[in-house]
Amino acid sequence: MRNTFGNLFTLTTFGESHGIAVGGVIDGFPAGIDIDMDFIQSELNRRRPGQSHITTARKEADQVEFLSGVFEGKSTGTPIGFEVRNQNQHSQDYENMRCLFRPSHADFTYNEKYGIRDHRGGGRSSARITIARCVGGALAKLALRQLGVSITAYTSQVGSIALEKDYHLYDFNTIEGNPVRCPDQAKAKEMEELIAQVKADGDTIGGIITCVIQGCPVGLGEPEFDKLHSQLGAAMLGINAVKGFEYGEGFAGVTARGSEQNDVFVPKAKNMDATDDAANHQETTINQDVAARITTKSNHSGGIQGGLSNGQDIYFRVAFKPVATLLMEQDTVDLEGNPTKLTARGRHDPCVLPRAVPVVEAMAAMVILDNYLLNKTVRL
Amino acid sequence: MRNTFGNLFTLTTFGESHGIAVGGVIDGFPAGIDIDMDFIQSELNRRRPGQSHITTARKEADQVEFLSGVFEGKSTGTPIGFEVRNQNQHSQDYENMRCLFRPSHADFTYNEKYGIRDHRGGGRSSARITIARCVGGALAKLALRQLGVSITAYTSQVGSIALEKDYHLYDFNTIEGNPVRCPDQAKAKEMEELIAQVKADGDTIGGIITCVIQGCPVGLGEPEFDKLHSQLGAAMLGINAVKGFEYGEGFAGVTARGSEQNDVFVPKAKNMDATDDAANHQETTINQDVAARITTKSNHSGGIQGGLSNGQDIYFRVAFKPVATLLMEQDTVDLEGNPTKLTARGRHDPCVLPRAVPVVEAMAAMVILDNYLLNKTVRL
Amino acid sequence: MRNTFGNLFTLTTFGESHGIAVGGVIDGFPAGIDIDMDFIQSELNRRRPGQSHITTARKEADQVEFLSGVFEGKSTGTPIGFEVRNQNQHSQDYENMRCLFRPSHADFTYNEKYGIRDHRGGGRSSARITIARCVGGALAKLALRQLGVSITAYTSQVGSIALEKDYHLYDFNTIEGNPVRCPDQAKAKEMEELIAQVKADGDTIGGIITCVIQGCPVGLGEPEFDKLHSQLGAAMLGINAVKGFEYGEGFAGVTARGSEQNDVFVPKAKNMDATDDAANHQETTINQDVAARITTKSNHSGGIQGGLSNGQDIYFRVAFKPVATLLMEQDTVDLEGNPTKLTARGRHDPCVLPRAVPVVEAMAAMVILDNYLLNKTVRL
Amino acid sequence: MRNTFGNLFTLTTFGESHGIAVGGVIDGFPAGIDIDMDFIQSELNRRRPGQSHITTARKEADQVEFLSGVFEGKSTGTPIGFEVRNQNQHSQDYENMRCLFRPSHADFTYNEKYGIRDHRGGGRSSARITIARCVGGALAKLALRQLGVSITAYTSQVGSIALEKDYHLYDFNTIEGNPVRCPDQAKAKEMEELIAQVKADGDTIGGIITCVIQGCPVGLGEPEFDKLHSQLGAAMLGINAVKGFEYGEGFAGVTARGSEQNDVFVPKAKNMDATDDAANHQETTINQDVAARITTKSNHSGGIQGGLSNGQDIYFRVAFKPVATLLMEQDTVDLEGNPTKLTARGRHDPCVLPRAVPVVEAMAAMVILDNYLLNKTVRL
Repeated sequence: MRNTFGNLFTLTTFGESHGIAVGGVIDGFPAGIDIDMDFIQSELNRRRPGQSHITTARKEADQVEFLSGVFEGKSTGTPIGFEVRNQNQHSQDYENMRCLFRPSHADFTYNEKYGIRDHRGGGRSSARITIARCVGGALAKLALRQLGVSITAYTSQVGSIALEKDYHLYDFNTIEGNPVRCPDQAKAKEMEELIAQVKADGDTIGGIITCVIQGCPVGLGEPEFDKLHSQLGAAMLGINAVKGFEYGEGFAGVTARGSEQNDVFVPKAKNMDATDDAANHQETTINQDVAARITTKSNHSGGIQGGLSNGQDIYFRVAFKPVATLLMEQDTVDLEGNPTKLTARGRHDPCVLPRAVPVVEAMAAMVILDNYLLNKTVRL
Repeated sequence: MRNTFGNLFTLTTFGESHGIAVGGVIDGFPAGIDIDMDFIQSELNRRRPGQSHITTARKEADQVEFLSGVFEGKSTGTPIGFEVRNQNQHSQDYENMRCLFRPSHADFTYNEKYGIRDHRGGGRSSARITIARCVGGALAKLALRQLGVSITAYTSQVGSIALEKDYHLYDFNTIEGNPVRCPDQAKAKEMEELIAQVKADGDTIGGIITCVIQGCPVGLGEPEFDKLHSQLGAAMLGINAVKGFEYGEGFAGVTARGSEQNDVFVPKAKNMDATDDAANHQETTINQDVAARITTKSNHSGGIQGGLSNGQDIYFRVAFKPVATLLMEQDTVDLEGNPTKLTARGRHDPCVLPRAVPVVEAMAAMVILDNYLLNKTVRL
Repeated sequence: MRNTFGNLFTLTTFGESHGIAVGGVIDGFPAGIDIDMDFIQSELNRRRPGQSHITTARKEADQVEFLSGVFEGKSTGTPIGFEVRNQNQHSQDYENMRCLFRPSHADFTYNEKYGIRDHRGGGRSSARITIARCVGGALAKLALRQLGVSITAYTSQVGSIALEKDYHLYDFNTIEGNPVRCPDQAKAKEMEELIAQVKADGDTIGGIITCVIQGCPVGLGEPEFDKLHSQLGAAMLGINAVKGFEYGEGFAGVTARGSEQNDVFVPKAKNMDATDDAANHQETTINQDVAARITTKSNHSGGIQGGLSNGQDIYFRVAFKPVATLLMEQDTVDLEGNPTKLTARGRHDPCVLPRAVPVVEAMAAMVILDNYLLNKTVRL
Repeated sequence: MRNTFGNLFTLTTFGESHGIAVGGVIDGFPAGIDIDMDFIQSELNRRRPGQSHITTARKEADQVEFLSGVFEGKSTGTPIGFEVRNQNQHSQDYENMRCLFRPSHADFTYNEKYGIRDHRGGGRSSARITIARCVGGALAKLALRQLGVSITAYTSQVGSIALEKDYHLYDFNTIEGNPVRCPDQAKAKEMEELIAQVKADGDTIGGIITCVIQGCPVGLGEPEFDKLHSQLGAAMLGINAVKGFEYGEGFAGVTARGSEQNDVFVPKAKNMDATDDAANHQETTINQDVAARITTKSNHSGGIQGGLSNGQDIYFRVAFKPVATLLMEQDTVDLEGNPTKLTARGRHDPCVLPRAVPVVEAMAAMVILDNYLLNKTVRL
């Protein structure tokens, strides 16, 4: 509830954009895992502003310090406190925000809910807070690596420029090869140009991130309210600027018939009819018990049936709106309701998707690890 | 976690399709609310099978009995236990399912997770379990009515037949006037015909439900992980057959620019430029404190900013796949992995959307009431 | 929170003394456990009124019905709903309580908290509600039996009549041999006589229950806030009429020095100096890993160190006040504050301890099972 | 669960004795409260080692730094992260503990539970971790002060030296006037001498802390499992070295009859028969609604009835064993089970009670604030 994510593996976060630090406490992380600090910092670096010409120019070091829970390089099972000190925040850039509500930001709603707000850089509502999520996600990935689970996200659409092929037709190793984090290099180039143009206008643009979870054991998720996709959906919708979530066939699948979408079971090693779309292609084997003998011909379901993972690839898509911070002049009102003009200074990120890719992965990783642990308690 | 929904106002459910009863315990319901049993039963009746020629023919009385928590017609603040006894379940229709996994059902994943399953009628994974949600939702609606909050859902797409106009251009009073629960009577007729045809084929079809929450106070939601739309999304994704959720501009909004989508603040009573699309039309006033003086020109945000309700209409869309139970012959395998044929008998619902409409409303109502209560604790 | 007990293995209860039924939902019970209904009913019977001449004369059948979660005699991992219908409640006996607050009952506090209360038989605050705990505890015991954990409680003091020896010097098989549930037959006789005399006076008397958990694995408990003894203490203090909890040396141990109370480690099979008091006697072996090689010379700690079970016997004591329902005339005031006289009719239980013994065991069993499951998630 | 305390107002802690820092995250603290940093630090100082000649000689600054959640001197409703950096920890003093289990410490149980432990200064199990609790408690006290609730704890017994009078016969203003934190100056002197002697022996001694909560509103607590005294009990039992908890008449009350212990209601301002023992003396008025007209003649119940506060003083007692760290030579075994001798160096606190007094208050304050917030949600 509130600032804690997860049930058994939990991340509790704190921090504001211009406060002393952002950070958190990770609890329930299994004991005895090697803590690879270089990997964790590298995950943070993927989220960091100033990586390329198409993100915000603001430079931040975002160096994480672990305060507890690790002893001689291994997790001890006790809570892991961590922090990233803020620096170089240019709080004065936001002084004029004290008495203004920026359109489509959290300024107005925070003000009404709490009766007080830290107006500097969006305070608690800033995307800077996702730093803590990346740390939690990096730890989760370290554990999942031991379980053979991998999580990969990429930018699949920016504005109207969309990838046309399904995820399994791309080489995931190329994702980090361009600043957009897109596995289609030609499309990536187009996206990059669009973003540069939007940036030049002081405007912003949205898009879609696709995420794929591979190697997930069968049976993760709780089948009533906390279906695995409910948890993934909630996790994604909790990321700043996200407006939609779909998995498997998603919204497009509403027009098909059941007889076209059902994933028929077949004996193992008899997969056939694989075609080029992701839903039909799966040769992935369902990987436990009975699962040793049978698989499905297709994966329209997106790797989850009855709310539980079925051992096949889990894939989903996350819609991001264009973020609200513009460098253009906008109409707004002051606290008294008088019309005025607003021109933001400070951070401006024309398209958040490249930097949101690691956040999507982090949230997914935490969901999977949490459910993996919970699933250990289903039998005595 | 698991079979409990909510934080302060909670619903814990139990029951299988062919067990003794389905039911639950509602905890945290405010004391002193008039319990209108006729209303609660009428909400259950909207979900009941056999209402019209286009749903499953199975007749079920689904009579709810309250076991506690109500005294002389009022809630007492103690937990409300309730149950609906199962009857007339035709368990023998499912005997052949004992050794088969139905495609795209939960049979396989339950079997692998728990090592045991009740194969009759889908057991715990049956949509029959949503009875308990409708009871919880009906209670939540009784409380929300006192707060001036209304929640309305309707079928906005079946297969490829989609409503073309935004919600505010329909008369919500007409929704219950056709078996599809659609406010556009001409489209409703088309949908009805499509469903009848799908039913004749023994097949199924998906669609989209739109939901609108009106009169919601400002500030509901928890701005970090449990954003109001994260909670709504999780609630919707927890409904059987749901594959996607979007709110405000949703997936369509990813192609627009920030300068087009930001909801600019204006002084109250100076709304202008209202056009016909929902996002631009809102004359709804933001309804608290500062909110008395200002409003926004548009509502692209869908009534939520920074994860908190902003007092405007909250609207969202929920994608349902065609359900997996067909009356057609399908390929599958038995528990040993041998190929075989499956022909379902028993319940067949060609399109679940009409009966899912009250479930969508129920889940939304529980989310709003839960957050309303939580929001009371934000200040001393 | 509120009416739910436990974290992973949870019991959510509902019901009032004179409502339709008392019952609950058990969630997180492991799949595949044989559900021995005779054992469960026998546990309920131990709690039932009217067992002997020294408890309340009210006869109640208290027959439990399971509504879900069990299939062909085994738990399925889905929630187990259950209920015990109320009958023969003589609600008219309580009509005069509608406008009175009984001294030291929950009447006044419920009235002030909720603004409404079911005055019949104490409503939700009745000890009748512990029925649901006994069902939850019986299920937990079924699981713990497979793990080799046993839980035994007995009456060790009534009024001033107290057992003088430590638990390991009694034969637990004799506990159920007298209506007081005391393993010292001579003392039991004295207690029985005292209770009969108190009953004749229309008065009540308190006492102490001792409980011993044997065979508990090492490492159960969460070492910071949810120490195993914190959880046990909270569980016991949640039982009606309980005013105190102590474990290991408890209150008596505050006068000793650390050098006297520390439980010194010794190599296995070299236990010596065992004397007659429980704290010094343990030859119990600590039962895991390193535990195979070492043990402690004494068990002053009561089987828990640093909040975690250490593999030795866990023993604790629970203090019960004399319950508040008297058959004597008492002074009180009405809702207006006018002095009046109160004479209770209906249920009168001169000493609740014999019937509280199974409730103490039930709560302890649920705590241990819950922590056993949680402990499975400590390592990957 | 695990390292989080509370339901709505929560404290999540991290840190080990010899790690980088101890600290935590406070969530759900109401917005708009003045944050008096001097008061918070002064509460921490009461817990700090090295305050007097009878506590550990180790000097620690224990300076708290707030990292978030406070803006221009007021709480913002967002999470409050804080930390106290460790320094001057003499980790080398503990090098010999790496391969030894100290008697009655958490060394053995941690080792078995997690398979790894930070042996330096007790790691996570160190009483140093209570720093975080004092910070959480100090914040809770700031909020409770606005509600007129005060919480006072004092040392009422050390070894066999016990106060003879009830709490209301002492002047609480004298508690901080001696190093033992005892309101009876003569007894305090005796206690101080006993502790000095125990210290000279390298030994330790236990005792009892009494705590009184005054001005608590009526109706706090959840009447089934989370009775107010269950929560207080769990909170106290979670403090290092605590072995018992009792409230109201506690263990002593088991020998009385109901007719002697019931707290009879009387019209307000007609209290009579007040005698010198706490249970009988209360002229405290029950402070709400009906409460305006009636009160009780005595307070044997300890301010809680049916699990809910009744507006009278809540009083309870907490038993501390002598702590396990001695400066004397002790027998123990190494990890292989070979007998060896142990002589602790480093921190030695002959009697923890004086420094535990603020921790008892802190835990009680957090319980009361949490329940106050929860109670706001009982009615619409």
